[in-house]
Amino acid sequence: MRRGNLTEEGILKKILTGSGPSLSRRAAQTVTLGVGDDAALFRPNAGLETILTCDWFLEGTHFLRDKHPPDSVGWKCLARALSDVAAMGGRPRCFLLSLALPATHTGRWLHQFLGGLRRASRTFDCVLAGGDTTRRNEILINVMVVGEVRKGHGALRSRARPGDVLYVSGRLGEAELGLRIIRRGKGPARNNSLTSKHLYPEPRLALGQWLSDHQLATAMMDLSDGLSSDLPRLCAASGVGARIETAKFPVVQGSPEIQRLGISSLLLALQGGDDYELLFTVSHDKAAELPRTFQGLALTPIGKITRRRELVQVDHIGRQRQLQAGGWDPFRTPR
Amino acid sequence: MRRGNLTEEGILKKILTGSGPSLSRRAAQTVTLGVGDDAALFRPNAGLETILTCDWFLEGTHFLRDKHPPDSVGWKCLARALSDVAAMGGRPRCFLLSLALPATHTGRWLHQFLGGLRRASRTFDCVLAGGDTTRRNEILINVMVVGEVRKGHGALRSRARPGDVLYVSGRLGEAELGLRIIRRGKGPARNNSLTSKHLYPEPRLALGQWLSDHQLATAMMDLSDGLSSDLPRLCAASGVGARIETAKFPVVQGSPEIQRLGISSLLLALQGGDDYELLFTVSHDKAAELPRTFQGLALTPIGKITRRRELVQVDHIGRQRQLQAGGWDPFRTPR
Repeated sequence: MRRGNLTEEGILKKILTGSGPSLSRRAAQTVTLGVGDDAALFRPNAGLETILTCDWFLEGTHFLRDKHPPDSVGWKCLARALSDVAAMGGRPRCFLLSLALPATHTGRWLHQFLGGLRRASRTFDCVLAGGDTTRRNEILINVMVVGEVRKGHGALRSRARPGDVLYVSGRLGEAELGLRIIRRGKGPARNNSLTSKHLYPEPRLALGQWLSDHQLATAMMDLSDGLSSDLPRLCAASGVGARIETAKFPVVQGSPEIQRLGISSLLLALQGGDDYELLFTVSHDKAAELPRTFQGLALTPIGKITRRRELVQVDHIGRQRQLQAGGWDPFRTPR
Repeated sequence: MRRGNLTEEGILKKILTGSGPSLSRRAAQTVTLGVGDDAALFRPNAGLETILTCDWFLEGTHFLRDKHPPDSVGWKCLARALSDVAAMGGRPRCFLLSLALPATHTGRWLHQFLGGLRRASRTFDCVLAGGDTTRRNEILINVMVVGEVRKGHGALRSRARPGDVLYVSGRLGEAELGLRIIRRGKGPARNNSLTSKHLYPEPRLALGQWLSDHQLATAMMDLSDGLSSDLPRLCAASGVGARIETAKFPVVQGSPEIQRLGISSLLLALQGGDDYELLFTVSHDKAAELPRTFQGLALTPIGKITRRRELVQVDHIGRQRQLQAGGWDPFRTPR
């Protein structure tokens, strides 16, 4: 275990070593110049548009130094930025890593962090192209991802139309449940079936590409702040409303942890962040042909898009109420 | 003056309003989808490579909340990232802004910050394409810039050859002098002839493009951490050494402030950060034809590239010594 006193160049070297030959070979097809110069040079594919997205991942705000294993921090900071590429229906190409670290964290912590980051990089086929490092008392991360999508095929939030069926992938609220279990537990988080979705989220890249390639989704976004916060964004961008049926929600079921924590699986689904599932709309005609699962991932219709610009939530016995935005907004949520 | 309680969407709106029609028109040619969706869509020009770079700009590390006017913070966070594009010989296209702010700074501070940012965006023709905002006790900024350069024309650090003449643009140490004056002064910094290079640096985009278009520079980088830190990087990347003559340095001269602060203009030039001038090498033959100024900006030969991998500094009476890296490295400099 090495500690402290690494220079910025030393940190860069650590980031570069251990990438392995396969990673470098793939990198050479994507970036003609990577880490170590003033900037990276990326070679775009002809006929494609470039997807650009960036995401904060900050100690205390997005993860906890004493709770989240560095390996998970490395995986998740890239995975969540890739979720934005998935939401556009695109393929990832490369990423830039901006990292600020205490000098005490340039040893084992950095090593494990880079382990998780490299695994995500290989898993999702997205190579490191460059970045910026500096020293800081707190661990600050910003990941910028470059992806590609066929011209005009990028899945926008703004094209949902009245009558479209509203879908979500996977299960909602699982990541939030994992976070609550981790917060209540003593010591660092353990990775198990209840916490893995929070610690190691999987961006829905294959689903996003499939929906985009076959032009099935009229509108799409990823769920990062909870359905009750994210659905209003999709509807506002499209100038429409929605009517969702809570009985149809793919919620976490049968977990004794939910009872122990005294929370409802519906609230977890509505307000839980970090799910990184896809929320998308499909025209009524095409919805009839949509499979119930894609590569083992559930695709669940949870409601309809309406002309009337209201967000209505209908419960299992038909009672209606306005959807209240209760998901995560860093400038609203008291912390 | 508005304060606090802005939601993330409210902040996004603030960022978008006031961009003006000319900015939006230019944006439409560069980005087919900007702020407000999961990601931005950028349309690369055929035959060009995409330059990608990102830069931290953090309170306490890169600027001081009580000293640096928000307008300067806005200008400089973009200008310094653009300097990396200049160093590649590229043209800027668009940028992503990651911003973390205290709730108390979403009013006047944000307004003035965006004023400086927009002015830099217009001046250097680089449109806002997207970003990420969150709440934080400290002001954290990360700017990611996308530029373009003709395939194979990107100016690298790694192509300096023995015999090449080493050049710098502009004057060295001016920004560091400005910072010292600002630190000694009471209250917020004032913008004047001594502080403006520190507060409002100008990336040398036109020079970088000219050198790249005419393939004049064999290697190039920008000076952000001081010549004594940055020159070793260029030499290491190229596998060469250098011999520099301090008497030739374009240092700050005749400023009574230098005497008052008890520093030497040579040390300012060697160790001062934030100059954002270009350091570049030109083959011996082409150097004979290089003008002394480019658009009013001095181009000064300060030494030669050598085969022997040493960095030698020669003073005005011919005494030689090894160049000591004394510029800014956040992991080395005690703070």
